[in-house]
Amino acid sequence: MSEYTAPLRDMQFVVEELAGLDTVNQLPGYEEATADLVQAVFEEASKFASGVLGPLNRAGDSNGAKWKDTVVTTTPGWKPAYEQFVEGGWNALACPAEIGGQNLPRLVSALVEEMWNAANISFALCPMLTRGAIEAIELRGSEHLKETYLPKMVSGEWTGTMNLTEPQAGSDLAAVRTRAVPQGDGSYKIDGQKIFITYGEHDLTDNIIHLVLARTPTAPEGVKGISLFVVPKFMLNDDGSLGERNDVRCVSIEHKLGIHGSPTCVLAFGQNGGATGYLVGEENRGLEYMFIMMNAARYSVGIEGIGLSERAYQHALAYARDRVQGTEAGVKGSGKVAIIRHPDVRRMLMLMKSQTEAMRALAGVVAAAMDTARVSADAAQQAQAQAFVDIMIPIVKGWSTENSIDIASLGVQIHGGMGFIEETGAAQYLRDARITAIYEGTTGIQAADLIGRKMARDQGQAAKTVIASMRATAESLQGAELAAIRESLTAGIDAFDRCVQYVVTNYGADARSVSVGSVPLLKLFGIVAGGWQLARSAAIASQHIADGKGSDFYKTKIVTARFYADHVLAQAPGLAHTVIDGASGALALADDQF
Amino acid sequence: MSEYTAPLRDMQFVVEELAGLDTVNQLPGYEEATADLVQAVFEEASKFASGVLGPLNRAGDSNGAKWKDTVVTTTPGWKPAYEQFVEGGWNALACPAEIGGQNLPRLVSALVEEMWNAANISFALCPMLTRGAIEAIELRGSEHLKETYLPKMVSGEWTGTMNLTEPQAGSDLAAVRTRAVPQGDGSYKIDGQKIFITYGEHDLTDNIIHLVLARTPTAPEGVKGISLFVVPKFMLNDDGSLGERNDVRCVSIEHKLGIHGSPTCVLAFGQNGGATGYLVGEENRGLEYMFIMMNAARYSVGIEGIGLSERAYQHALAYARDRVQGTEAGVKGSGKVAIIRHPDVRRMLMLMKSQTEAMRALAGVVAAAMDTARVSADAAQQAQAQAFVDIMIPIVKGWSTENSIDIASLGVQIHGGMGFIEETGAAQYLRDARITAIYEGTTGIQAADLIGRKMARDQGQAAKTVIASMRATAESLQGAELAAIRESLTAGIDAFDRCVQYVVTNYGADARSVSVGSVPLLKLFGIVAGGWQLARSAAIASQHIADGKGSDFYKTKIVTARFYADHVLAQAPGLAHTVIDGASGALALADDQF
Repeated sequence: MSEYTAPLRDMQFVVEELAGLDTVNQLPGYEEATADLVQAVFEEASKFASGVLGPLNRAGDSNGAKWKDTVVTTTPGWKPAYEQFVEGGWNALACPAEIGGQNLPRLVSALVEEMWNAANISFALCPMLTRGAIEAIELRGSEHLKETYLPKMVSGEWTGTMNLTEPQAGSDLAAVRTRAVPQGDGSYKIDGQKIFITYGEHDLTDNIIHLVLARTPTAPEGVKGISLFVVPKFMLNDDGSLGERNDVRCVSIEHKLGIHGSPTCVLAFGQNGGATGYLVGEENRGLEYMFIMMNAARYSVGIEGIGLSERAYQHALAYARDRVQGTEAGVKGSGKVAIIRHPDVRRMLMLMKSQTEAMRALAGVVAAAMDTARVSADAAQQAQAQAFVDIMIPIVKGWSTENSIDIASLGVQIHGGMGFIEETGAAQYLRDARITAIYEGTTGIQAADLIGRKMARDQGQAAKTVIASMRATAESLQGAELAAIRESLTAGIDAFDRCVQYVVTNYGADARSVSVGSVPLLKLFGIVAGGWQLARSAAIASQHIADGKGSDFYKTKIVTARFYADHVLAQAPGLAHTVIDGASGALALADDQF
Repeated sequence: MSEYTAPLRDMQFVVEELAGLDTVNQLPGYEEATADLVQAVFEEASKFASGVLGPLNRAGDSNGAKWKDTVVTTTPGWKPAYEQFVEGGWNALACPAEIGGQNLPRLVSALVEEMWNAANISFALCPMLTRGAIEAIELRGSEHLKETYLPKMVSGEWTGTMNLTEPQAGSDLAAVRTRAVPQGDGSYKIDGQKIFITYGEHDLTDNIIHLVLARTPTAPEGVKGISLFVVPKFMLNDDGSLGERNDVRCVSIEHKLGIHGSPTCVLAFGQNGGATGYLVGEENRGLEYMFIMMNAARYSVGIEGIGLSERAYQHALAYARDRVQGTEAGVKGSGKVAIIRHPDVRRMLMLMKSQTEAMRALAGVVAAAMDTARVSADAAQQAQAQAFVDIMIPIVKGWSTENSIDIASLGVQIHGGMGFIEETGAAQYLRDARITAIYEGTTGIQAADLIGRKMARDQGQAAKTVIASMRATAESLQGAELAAIRESLTAGIDAFDRCVQYVVTNYGADARSVSVGSVPLLKLFGIVAGGWQLARSAAIASQHIADGKGSDFYKTKIVTARFYADHVLAQAPGLAHTVIDGASGALALADDQF
């Protein structure tokens, strides 16, 4: 069985040297987030992840959530672990102080979140969804809704869910049909069926607060007629105690490829007269509210990808060190060696390691920008940070999750035949990772968001600002040791630059053709942005070494950046070709010619 | 539930227009394999695949083989399907006439094999393993062994297995420890444990003939001390009837990521005094015999990848045509459309389709060369064909299987959230495909074979011959319509050519560095070879159209080749960079720096 150990040294590096904790903790409200405090938080989180969540991961897979007669029972061990999670105050880590949270910068909570996901993604999904629900109520809920629901959601005594999808409305929320009929007393009766509701029912807490998209009788068609409602599993009495059961029931859970520990529920609202719901904000603005939260949710799914990648890497590395098989290539008379000595195994490990570190670095830098965008007192700085966050969210989400699938698959490959045996555990990461590129918007949806809203709409301004930063990094890479990195990074930036021009020039006239290249462009942007962060890492490491403060960690950073330059960044020019020239072949067939 | 339909039109094209059936059926013994006969065989096979094997595929997954007290029970429906398979004569399709087979060219049986694997890979594995065992006995067994075992193995009344792997000896067969002690009567007592034995025990037939690698007491250490034995599950009486049970038992089966319908057995030999075995060929030459069969087995696993890719494509295509979601990009006022109208879905479908057709075309061309190498009366032609087969086997195996994982994963993605639900069936192809890049030699093993035995040893001669053929194809591409294909193919050939030079120049002095690029090189070779075959297809199609014999099929071939050129071939130069420059980053870390 694999043990998970949080990569604390790399997390410290990301927080302090790449993402700029010393700038973030100058922001109003984050003054207490000193390097010492952050390290203490990371160490405690690491203990909880390794000691409590990690050991439950396999059980969650092999003995997942069970459904019977509308009741969902989680994996044995889940409930006490959740109680410890709540007691430890972990649920409130990222929440603002004014609603009872610990108000740590997103930079910090994001890396803690990586630990939860690495240790046990199925478990981590529950507080992730609760956080989304908290944010919706916090941002647009009435004072009464906030007072009624937030304290217990922030503490974790109650959990939250997000009810968007219906059978006919997956990626297309305009097609939502669930109805909400006003009752004249300020409440609504909700009636409809929602699917794919993560932790829509469970036995971890005594209440669940559902956030539900639905249409009122007078609502216009399409996306402009969707409202957002709070629908508690149990109604509340005037004194705040639990009252009668609301009319929402879990009618089944899904049998899935992975994340078996996380119940994916079909929820029926209103089978007995209508579930009581309370409007959040104004009618017909539900989708707008969802979009406000979407950046946060998509970012979190990107973190899931990073956590799974780290876990898969650690698992494969342990096996590669332990498994003795064959002799060493090119070494005459070599005895049997551990497979980590084989060049191809080493290549696979380096692919896992370098991409995971690139994703973590990028996510950390984006988290710091989220903090600036949220609380900076400087409006210009705030706007600039928000523009960066907006364009990077589809990358953190789309690129990190697609990579996590490939990285987990490499982990299986390193195990050879044992990788295919479920008891080994390597296959679980692949099965778990597969959903991350689908939920909260598929990679295709992320890529459409990237080229449309984030790139074409502002005529490439945000992208060009990122390109300028990336070029500055490339130009800062001095010396023979960093020359190869500089060369690959520059070629990658040039490739990305060409694609941005192409999108800006052609999207308006021919969105259909440009859309063919949207996912290849998302991948290209991710590869180059990751290379940018690894190049920054190498430059910082090189400086430390020049200053006589070199350590194994810094030497490794340079090697890792070099590997990534030759094995990952090298794909960038080919992807640009696909983005720019790939439309004709993709669109030429009639539907019936496939 | 997905229905499988064999891609008969494309198979006909591969057989008749790309791989040259009219040349193959000039070879001695294959005269009866006319185009008409082949089409009739394909149509019958297609009916069996769609009507009998395909409908059992999901059941094999959800209700796989079960083990209890050394007995293995296959999925309900498996046994009658196997009986029909045997009655239909399908087991003997590829076997030579002199041992009771139908002696069809490998070109024909390979495409039939694709149908079995597409319909139901877990089922198809059983006859695949039998065929390997038949070949071992046929090639090196004594007349007595042949007379005793082959007739019923060829008919399919008995099945065969290959027992290579032991817990400490996976990819490294030099480490095999199973013992074989001569009994003085020509037989041996076999004692040891074998793992990962596909169909090592089952209820489909009343006997199973195991082929087992083991060491005699006087054998030298390492690969030169391994012998091959026949060990029947039931001993035979003098009249050929089944006698007493031999001392080989299935002590467990594996709980696997996929191919649940195929029992993967742990076999214990000699727990009660020793299993009786009979030497095949000479002592200590077992590994040599295995290598003779290995090309065939590896080729077959490549075919598994192609079958799974085709099935995943058909499943995703059906969903994309059926699923209505969202409006059309760039089309104002478009109503809701089937997702096949979305550019990114179309891109994914084209990736699945174009790569599957490229793999099928390449496998067909290699199969025709296998036929020439086997029976041509012209020794020079034979040697040339064998050299081509030898260098292409790691590509057909490694490239087709790695692709099948990505293609099945794209199939999941096209299904969105439904792809993650097991009942949809899309996830099964991903789980099933994952093993194909591992068994019969991992992709790393294939790549080591490619750069060492197949490329460095002959100083790149075989590779250069392939390059010359590919260049001739590129130069034959005339006209504006084929210009983009020509350009990408030429860039791909140039990239591959540079890599061959690099391997030939550096392998002798630094095998370790060159090995870092072995898998990227295998991938590059596969991509370019596939592009070569699609370019040939486009040229043939273009000629038909010029001749006024254009059809939808031929028009589609040109579009498909164009898509592949821009979306797949475009990766070639980046891979060459990785092959040539990728060693330093991969090898610089000490083991403990990971």
